[in-house]
Amino acid sequence: MNWQQELTTRADLINSSLQSLLPPASCYPPVIHEAMRYSSFAGGKRLRGVLTLATAGMLGLEEERVLPAAAAIEMIHTYSLIHDDLPAMDDDDYRRGRPTCHRVFGEAIAILAGDALLTLAFETLSRLAEGGFASSVVLQVIQEVASGAGSRGLVGGQVVDLESEGKDIEASVLEYIHRHKTGALFRAAIRSGAILAGAGDKELTALTGYAEAFGLAFQITDDILDLAGSEEKLGKKTGRDLARGKVTYPGLFGMKKAREMAACQVEKCLMSLAVFGPEAEFLREAALYLLSRQT
Amino acid sequence: MNWQQELTTRADLINSSLQSLLPPASCYPPVIHEAMRYSSFAGGKRLRGVLTLATAGMLGLEEERVLPAAAAIEMIHTYSLIHDDLPAMDDDDYRRGRPTCHRVFGEAIAILAGDALLTLAFETLSRLAEGGFASSVVLQVIQEVASGAGSRGLVGGQVVDLESEGKDIEASVLEYIHRHKTGALFRAAIRSGAILAGAGDKELTALTGYAEAFGLAFQITDDILDLAGSEEKLGKKTGRDLARGKVTYPGLFGMKKAREMAACQVEKCLMSLAVFGPEAEFLREAALYLLSRQT
Repeated sequence: MNWQQELTTRADLINSSLQSLLPPASCYPPVIHEAMRYSSFAGGKRLRGVLTLATAGMLGLEEERVLPAAAAIEMIHTYSLIHDDLPAMDDDDYRRGRPTCHRVFGEAIAILAGDALLTLAFETLSRLAEGGFASSVVLQVIQEVASGAGSRGLVGGQVVDLESEGKDIEASVLEYIHRHKTGALFRAAIRSGAILAGAGDKELTALTGYAEAFGLAFQITDDILDLAGSEEKLGKKTGRDLARGKVTYPGLFGMKKAREMAACQVEKCLMSLAVFGPEAEFLREAALYLLSRQT
Repeated sequence: MNWQQELTTRADLINSSLQSLLPPASCYPPVIHEAMRYSSFAGGKRLRGVLTLATAGMLGLEEERVLPAAAAIEMIHTYSLIHDDLPAMDDDDYRRGRPTCHRVFGEAIAILAGDALLTLAFETLSRLAEGGFASSVVLQVIQEVASGAGSRGLVGGQVVDLESEGKDIEASVLEYIHRHKTGALFRAAIRSGAILAGAGDKELTALTGYAEAFGLAFQITDDILDLAGSEEKLGKKTGRDLARGKVTYPGLFGMKKAREMAACQVEKCLMSLAVFGPEAEFLREAALYLLSRQT
């Protein structure tokens, strides 16, 4: 099985898990469950959740057992996209080629659908113990995810991103934004998989290094795609960052240097995985994929 | 010590706990922590958190040990107020006599401050085990709070409330709104205190009955205050529900019947507590207070 197939297989498993974890669209009050499902099944790659599965799997755990954790990570990712797209935030009308949540359901329901997905993520994590994990390990994962998602993680990154719009910012601020807005959830996704699989200190340190470099490489290539990608493939307008006055890696350093920086972070990913053998092949290929991604 | 003093003493404890649990306002990025603190310390009565403490205390637990749980419940209450007040929702400019979060910090930061408080609540709960509680008990509390706050709890109530604006709705829908929008968090607050104190089935059933009647009585008296209360004491405009086309208990049943319904729910509160002795005095007085509340 090649890397792309493995990615799709795992993404399909996460989709099935989300199907059973999200309340049915008919569940009262239906509009909120329709909105939660509309944004949850919008054709995302499930990269974060897939990394949770793959990390647990390479450490010897049956991947199926961490599916609820992977699904919870994806719920948090979806909530963050719904809120980011709101008129008061990035004001985006389209995502992955479809109208954004607030364009379909209105702003109020979009805000509430995000709130409900964030809450359901923690409810889902709290039920991991039913899958045979020790309660203390589950609590560690909840802490990991909550601290990655909060005001000193994902939300903090979004705050600095919004505040920096239209301003000249330094490279250190740009790095803060990306380490938090994008990086924190990748970090929590990978560390959660590792913690559930009972990773030792050495493994956890290596995987944390991998996750941090991966998050940064992902965001740099995202910036590059926004500037140079295909609108058709991305399903959204390109050049949005520029139009909005967002500082990006290619904007700050030029396209050539940005590509080099992405390659450098991917190199860091591979070095971090040096402590592992062939079992880390999927994670290695995931990092390399970032350099060729088109969506 | 009379009831009012006990309430204030407990509220002060919760305020101190929130002071130490919320990141300092100077913590980067400061604006989000300022906004979280602005809305967290807006002079609320901390009734939900106080009920968590009092419930644990009457079951023999040292109240100080459940302070983080009480603070987490109040974080969720604050998050729900910030999001409810947004222009896309209830569009309120004032709360407790002060400009609402989005009026001071803008809509984007208000949305994110709510998101961050909700997330911090779960992080705080996940750390309860550090206070000596069994991890399995802590997970039960997280489940309780998450299911009370999600799309079939608090968020579901808010959805139906928004959808019902300006419409003729039946009494059953009004009861759904209040059981969820207001009731679900009171229920989670009281049940969390009980679960942490190791309540048996009989006690938990009695306290759940109390909590559900309390939530309903609280909301009916809230509706009455909105129509007949003092703007000065409430710190917000009265008659807002009417102006906004919200169906309320006095609106649907008339003021006299609404007062009788509140009294009936308070009676249910007292009956639910019949299995307890004098140790439940604070909870009894809390229910009776609803009939005389002016804020």
